[in-house]
Amino acid sequence: MLALIGMGLGKGDISVRAIDFIKGCDKVYAERYTAVSDDGAIAEISASTGKSIETLQRQDFEDRVKETVRSAAHASVAILVYGDPLVATTHHIILDEAEKQNIEAKVFHSSSILSAAIGESCLDVYRFGPPVTIPYWSEKYRPTSFLDVAERNLSNNLHTMLLMDINQKERAPMKLSEALEIIRSAQGNSGKAIFQDGTSIMIMGNVGKHDQKIALTAFATAQSLVSAFEGKMLVMILPSKPNFAEEEAMSKFKNPD
Amino acid sequence: MLALIGMGLGKGDISVRAIDFIKGCDKVYAERYTAVSDDGAIAEISASTGKSIETLQRQDFEDRVKETVRSAAHASVAILVYGDPLVATTHHIILDEAEKQNIEAKVFHSSSILSAAIGESCLDVYRFGPPVTIPYWSEKYRPTSFLDVAERNLSNNLHTMLLMDINQKERAPMKLSEALEIIRSAQGNSGKAIFQDGTSIMIMGNVGKHDQKIALTAFATAQSLVSAFEGKMLVMILPSKPNFAEEEAMSKFKNPD
Repeated sequence: MLALIGMGLGKGDISVRAIDFIKGCDKVYAERYTAVSDDGAIAEISASTGKSIETLQRQDFEDRVKETVRSAAHASVAILVYGDPLVATTHHIILDEAEKQNIEAKVFHSSSILSAAIGESCLDVYRFGPPVTIPYWSEKYRPTSFLDVAERNLSNNLHTMLLMDINQKERAPMKLSEALEIIRSAQGNSGKAIFQDGTSIMIMGNVGKHDQKIALTAFATAQSLVSAFEGKMLVMILPSKPNFAEEEAMSKFKNPD
Repeated sequence: MLALIGMGLGKGDISVRAIDFIKGCDKVYAERYTAVSDDGAIAEISASTGKSIETLQRQDFEDRVKETVRSAAHASVAILVYGDPLVATTHHIILDEAEKQNIEAKVFHSSSILSAAIGESCLDVYRFGPPVTIPYWSEKYRPTSFLDVAERNLSNNLHTMLLMDINQKERAPMKLSEALEIIRSAQGNSGKAIFQDGTSIMIMGNVGKHDQKIALTAFATAQSLVSAFEGKMLVMILPSKPNFAEEEAMSKFKNPD
């Protein structure tokens, strides 16, 4: 029996029945390459279940997915992941492998940045187009397609959630300054001007945690918020034209100045 | 102090830290009008925290939101809701009222049908357009706008999640037979033929629970699955043209016949 278990947005967000399940497991892994921040969630789960938890990095995981799944043929094996375990398609690989090996698999859902950020934004869930991820650029890989998606969403009067890539080398979430720089460069390269100086953007840090911070600001002044969001896991929302209720609700996120 | 607490998709899905918080509460309510199914989640929370939990129906809630919030001025009050507490905009009313009354409010996120169903569908999260809700029709209210959204999503090559209205009178989730009938009637009234006989739809019942069931079927044959999905909380997905990975992953949901 193999279980994919969501740890949610942070420490203590794992579900009660997931904790009960882990207590009966023979082996517990934590996948750490699709999420890099560690707020002590894994240590807390280890303490409350009495299980030692082995961390899997990307290389471990890719090399060992078959073997890890195979170990669940005659034992209960849990793999912990941040957020909801199935939103990132990476984790479907584990379920597919379990199916191939004819091993029973269970999924424990949890809070996801996707639904939590929509909720915290005060924007209407029915007005969100597809989300995008702002990717790190390299010498040879400079994708600007996230701008195309945002542009299409705006033209359909839909909001866009902008998730952020992870800096795998430094094991750190993308910084606000980096995200703004990539947006500016992508606009320069593609000739698109989706984010103009006066365009409102919502910057959300550590959604769902005790130190959550949300700011609604003009794109031109977002740079001044870099230090305020330092060290926080970020998502941004590019709101389309807000309706009356959204406008009113969002006003609390405007900067005092 | 007021807390909005998500109970997630079902029994045991509430988070560990939410349970700890409830243990210290003076008063605990459960909101039962945006979700009607009761799988024992509330009773289990009551048993594990030692708190009695008062159920709020819509009328209670609307009449008493100010009073309920006011009671949190000098006490710890928790309001339990199914799913993630902020995805349904209804619950923002509580936070707004708390802000007006200058009462501290906390949110405990949890698993949401929105992110869980995307994950379980094996479809790409980046290819979902805005979701819709299939509404019950009455003599005077026969909206067909959910078809417009699905049509626009298809024309943008995006998937559509179809959530279901709740039968408030009978306190029951919408049945598959009802949903199919409303889709057919809406297509008849609007002249749109988004769901054609051969159109693939994904029917998902009790997502995230032990008795989750998912079927990928042609619209014309969906009716034959009515009894198989009897009593389950439903969502449907109208997939746009699947890409190769999606096609392969979804194939496990095809009916054997």
